[in-house]
Amino acid sequence: MDLKHIIKEYNTLCEDNDWQVFHTPKNLASAVAVSASKILQHYQWITEEESITLGRIPQSRERIEAEISETFFYLLALANRTGIDFEQAIANKARKDARDYQGAPD
Amino acid sequence: MDLKHIIKEYNTLCEDNDWQVFHTPKNLASAVAVSASKILQHYQWITEEESITLGRIPQSRERIEAEISETFFYLLALANRTGIDFEQAIANKARKDARDYQGAPD
Amino acid sequence: MDLKHIIKEYNTLCEDNDWQVFHTPKNLASAVAVSASKILQHYQWITEEESITLGRIPQSRERIEAEISETFFYLLALANRTGIDFEQAIANKARKDARDYQGAPD
Amino acid sequence: MDLKHIIKEYNTLCEDNDWQVFHTPKNLASAVAVSASKILQHYQWITEEESITLGRIPQSRERIEAEISETFFYLLALANRTGIDFEQAIANKARKDARDYQGAPD
Repeated sequence: MDLKHIIKEYNTLCEDNDWQVFHTPKNLASAVAVSASKILQHYQWITEEESITLGRIPQSRERIEAEISETFFYLLALANRTGIDFEQAIANKARKDARDYQGAPD
Repeated sequence: MDLKHIIKEYNTLCEDNDWQVFHTPKNLASAVAVSASKILQHYQWITEEESITLGRIPQSRERIEAEISETFFYLLALANRTGIDFEQAIANKARKDARDYQGAPD
Repeated sequence: MDLKHIIKEYNTLCEDNDWQVFHTPKNLASAVAVSASKILQHYQWITEEESITLGRIPQSRERIEAEISETFFYLLALANRTGIDFEQAIANKARKDARDYQGAPD
Repeated sequence: MDLKHIIKEYNTLCEDNDWQVFHTPKNLASAVAVSASKILQHYQWITEEESITLGRIPQSRERIEAEISETFFYLLALANRTGIDFEQAIANKARKDARDYQGAPD
């Protein structure tokens, strides 16, 4: 899947719905944190072992999937509104990790 | 950029470094929430207006960029460890949003 | 109100209900973060000005009040399970703040 | 310790330092979430068992103690700025919990 395409479509969606007025970086940073905590809520009282099998329960997996996606799109919107090239950002991080942890050349 | 490629490389990185032992869904859900809050920390005491221009300060933008990327890769790892196809998940969400907010056909 | 009394009663409640098994510090730290984010959820899309008057809406105030209390009791449980004297901890912090910000003697 | 006294002193501290301008409910809700996540950061990669003994390491305990106190005072400020009587709120919650979980009379 082409990430560039996903990003472009999402930005168009935000503009078409005039979400920009709510989508200030301050608000989006809160939205990322809030949706991330909704994911965590599924795991707060279960053991690490139980957490490994939670994804096998379709209802739980679907809710976690929806919240992961929501968190992702808020991250995307935050990057966009902060002048950060999301694609470039994760490519840089992947390269840095490869260098730091896999002995890949600079 | 091909998201499939990024995902595959990241999963290889995790396996090669034996991170799986720490990367239980429970731990990764905490890591997503913690790194999301690090982003929020930049914005907690500034106004919405100030938050719009924060990204113009190179040092702030670079730190926010690093934290957005970190949050993204933890989301990716969590999806992977929960049996969720990340690519499919965000494609589904994009389709759902288009349907809900842009009158796109089902 | 005597904080010592509140703390003692809460610890008894936890013991009487055998919550200790779930109340590991790791879990309680997640519970604190999750309940804190539920508070934040009320504020994520409104302006700072709107946030000042939100407490005047009885239904919102009651929900925020319940979530503030919930977060407080998880903090209390976490302190208790970590060998931290909660009362002493906040007394120390109050003294430190007075020293740092009000010129109070050491 | 008298909670009423702690609350009064903290409110005076905030007023004397003109923190009110930053202490909007929206900002304080973020501050609560951010400081709560700093607590969680200590626990994200350790097991529940390890989390039980973490408090025995003085350096860790001191940092967690400082972050618990910080989260508590932000909760206090948020309650104050939202027209919530903190003392009353936790008394209500304690009474409700006793009723729900200990068969105490209404």
